[in-house]
Amino acid sequence: MRSDKSALVFLLLQLFCVGCGFCGKVLVWPCDMSHWLNVKVILEELIVRGHEVTVLTHSKPSLIDYRKPSALKFEVVHMPQDRTEENEIFVDLALNVLPGLSTWQSVIKLNDFFVEIRGTLKMMCESFIYNQTLMKKLQETNYDVMLIDPVIPCGDLMAELLAVPFVLTLRISVGGNMERSCGKLPAPLSYVPVPMTGLTDRMTFLERVKNSMLSVLFHFWIQDYDYHFWEEFYSKALGRPTTLCETVGKAEIWLIRTYWDFEFPQPYQPNFEFVGGLHCKPAKALPKVLWRYKGKKPSTLGANTRLYDWIPQNDLLGHPKTKAFITHGGMNGIYEAIYHGVPMVGVPIFGDQLDNIAHMKAKGAAVEINFKTMTSEDLLRALRTVITDSSYKENAMRLSRIHHDQPVKPLDRAVFWIEFVMRHKGAKHLRSAAHDLTWFQHYSIDVIGFLLACVATAIFLFTKCFLFSCQKFNKTRKIEKRE
Amino acid sequence: MRSDKSALVFLLLQLFCVGCGFCGKVLVWPCDMSHWLNVKVILEELIVRGHEVTVLTHSKPSLIDYRKPSALKFEVVHMPQDRTEENEIFVDLALNVLPGLSTWQSVIKLNDFFVEIRGTLKMMCESFIYNQTLMKKLQETNYDVMLIDPVIPCGDLMAELLAVPFVLTLRISVGGNMERSCGKLPAPLSYVPVPMTGLTDRMTFLERVKNSMLSVLFHFWIQDYDYHFWEEFYSKALGRPTTLCETVGKAEIWLIRTYWDFEFPQPYQPNFEFVGGLHCKPAKALPKVLWRYKGKKPSTLGANTRLYDWIPQNDLLGHPKTKAFITHGGMNGIYEAIYHGVPMVGVPIFGDQLDNIAHMKAKGAAVEINFKTMTSEDLLRALRTVITDSSYKENAMRLSRIHHDQPVKPLDRAVFWIEFVMRHKGAKHLRSAAHDLTWFQHYSIDVIGFLLACVATAIFLFTKCFLFSCQKFNKTRKIEKRE
Repeated sequence: MRSDKSALVFLLLQLFCVGCGFCGKVLVWPCDMSHWLNVKVILEELIVRGHEVTVLTHSKPSLIDYRKPSALKFEVVHMPQDRTEENEIFVDLALNVLPGLSTWQSVIKLNDFFVEIRGTLKMMCESFIYNQTLMKKLQETNYDVMLIDPVIPCGDLMAELLAVPFVLTLRISVGGNMERSCGKLPAPLSYVPVPMTGLTDRMTFLERVKNSMLSVLFHFWIQDYDYHFWEEFYSKALGRPTTLCETVGKAEIWLIRTYWDFEFPQPYQPNFEFVGGLHCKPAKALPKVLWRYKGKKPSTLGANTRLYDWIPQNDLLGHPKTKAFITHGGMNGIYEAIYHGVPMVGVPIFGDQLDNIAHMKAKGAAVEINFKTMTSEDLLRALRTVITDSSYKENAMRLSRIHHDQPVKPLDRAVFWIEFVMRHKGAKHLRSAAHDLTWFQHYSIDVIGFLLACVATAIFLFTKCFLFSCQKFNKTRKIEKRE
Repeated sequence: MRSDKSALVFLLLQLFCVGCGFCGKVLVWPCDMSHWLNVKVILEELIVRGHEVTVLTHSKPSLIDYRKPSALKFEVVHMPQDRTEENEIFVDLALNVLPGLSTWQSVIKLNDFFVEIRGTLKMMCESFIYNQTLMKKLQETNYDVMLIDPVIPCGDLMAELLAVPFVLTLRISVGGNMERSCGKLPAPLSYVPVPMTGLTDRMTFLERVKNSMLSVLFHFWIQDYDYHFWEEFYSKALGRPTTLCETVGKAEIWLIRTYWDFEFPQPYQPNFEFVGGLHCKPAKALPKVLWRYKGKKPSTLGANTRLYDWIPQNDLLGHPKTKAFITHGGMNGIYEAIYHGVPMVGVPIFGDQLDNIAHMKAKGAAVEINFKTMTSEDLLRALRTVITDSSYKENAMRLSRIHHDQPVKPLDRAVFWIEFVMRHKGAKHLRSAAHDLTWFQHYSIDVIGFLLACVATAIFLFTKCFLFSCQKFNKTRKIEKRE
């Protein structure tokens, strides 16, 4: 309905171009599934404000509904190879394999999957950047900004080829490696946990040791397994040696899909904007009792229970009678719960879900149960806990109050910074000089080395002088004695 | 005029309390002079929004006009000792002594002055906190928030004694030490220059060496000279051992009087808000030609030049015919120039002024001249440069565009966060866990030590095993040979 409305508004605005002082052209490199649901909200707002939005997609996406009438424009590229098999592998992995594994095994398994499919991802990228007709058309359109989900590589490469400034939209990369290495996000290991490890900002000594070791491990592992692969491909495409971080690091703004209601407070760079929950909105009214259920209607079902194929989760969470939310811990759902102040029972499965639930647990708004070992009693006990122990509701309400009390709403902030990049052709005043330093300069390794060398030289010279003086003194004394 | 208007609005709002959803009580610990001019703008806005604002002051301030009718309330404490002499020493220092010194000497001299007068500052603090009538009255008023300029110590101590959450307003502390040590502001020394050194974010190797050494030096020097003195006093007043950083570090929000139009981009904590230029406003019309001059009218003065005792600087800078701004580099003036996009000729004298001009030089909007050695030709050449070389005007205009293109105006953001602290009784969700770590935990010294010890033990054990095996092997061979 929203997109019907915005399609109409878009047409009107296209005619008069009055939505904003500046009507620009936005090119989007999205990621499918829940990522798309989130980014779509930004795109619809951009449309409402009078911008022209073009989305790049391959021909068989899951949720990117390019066939439906929409105010969004689509550039669809046909993949030379079917991706159905990979989709099936992923669904099997998520539902059957990952939940049975430990965190660490799960991260490795998920990364292995990405390593397996990166041949396909590379092929997908090639079918865009080596499609001369498409690239010529895009070049000639003169886009003002690109909005890129960097989870699927290639968007930043396209931006570089088209010479268009770009904004990233991201929840988190594996181990937070992209934000830290390419975005220069500082992460003091004493209170900033490595993402996806389930650690919090308050760690014991041994947890801090673990955090430091995992940080180093993640860094080198991902650099080795993943970055080097893409660097070769990017360098070939650009015709000059480059690194993945060099290209991703050119982002003008990083729109992070969290906020301080969810995050542990940590330092960040001025070009990071935390816009978590931008998709949330007030709930609409619902029928009195209801149940989302697709199967045959159970004969024992009470008369006061209605079955539906699908219920809008946001409206359900915003219903005043909603007491708790059982969730796999996806970011969109977590934010709907925060928005409406509903305590959670988390059953994380893979990716950032374990971490998301760990955050909500640390903030006292959720109880976690293990998907692998859970029984119906576990679920019942967890539900009873978050419903009867009032602290869970209080904490959920506290997070909700924090979420609602911001100077500017997350969606408006996201759109503001995209428009800022359009108006000013970038946002270089927010980009730290760290981007122009090598890693050993960045961490002052050369300076520390130099100062240590100075100290060593000073000690050496002092010792030499001292020994020399002693020798002299001894000689003089011997001569004196002889005399 | 503003204060007359706001006094009226205040009276009306006091009657109906409609300025905001929540009308609160604000207690202010200000610093005099230009600091006061800046903070007053925030206070007037708080008044307009219906809050009750009480300012603490001693009886002989310079610019804190507590005798004039105003919507602000004042709590005036009579100092047992006259401060006129110290004011005179300061003026002499600023005008005659400091400009003749190098940066480094100037910083030391200025700090020496503060060390000299801290007896008076301590006495001033005592005359507030040990004034039982006043403290009882303040306690009973139940303030919702304190707004504190930490350049003069004591405000944070009062907040602690009154158990009121507080917000700091600050341009910069000496060497940035307070923000870094007490506010946990990260400062990677490779691209974040130590303030007041004139260094920028793009440093040569030797400048980075200098920056690192100065950072360490500043830290220990200020800890030794200043912090220990106040720690003893604070501990006595609170009746328990404390540090200055522990008390200052309890600030809910740090309102910094700069923004990214002026600052070099650097990482910061979520409870830092950059509200530079909050006092700026559009210029009012001026007469056609004019000159601020207090002395006797020169006989050679042309008929087209008018003399005035005082001209509002902001209106002058906003005049379309203003080509350049000759400034000592005070923060308020710099921001008026940024606001109106006027290039500058900087003649820094002391404090943060050298640094302020260094920032504007690095951003291409100013030329600097040395106050100590300058001749009229130098001034003329500098003026000609910023007027005729169009890059200065372009850069000043670029900074101005950045300044004006923010999602929320600086003054509104400052007031928003003060009101946020009132509404939520703090802003703990923005306070990083770094505050609860010791310095060696914060910098992971213990973790690094532990890991190095592990590596050393492993090497030791490996070597022992290897040597033991070699010995065994040799013995066996010897026995074999004998046999």
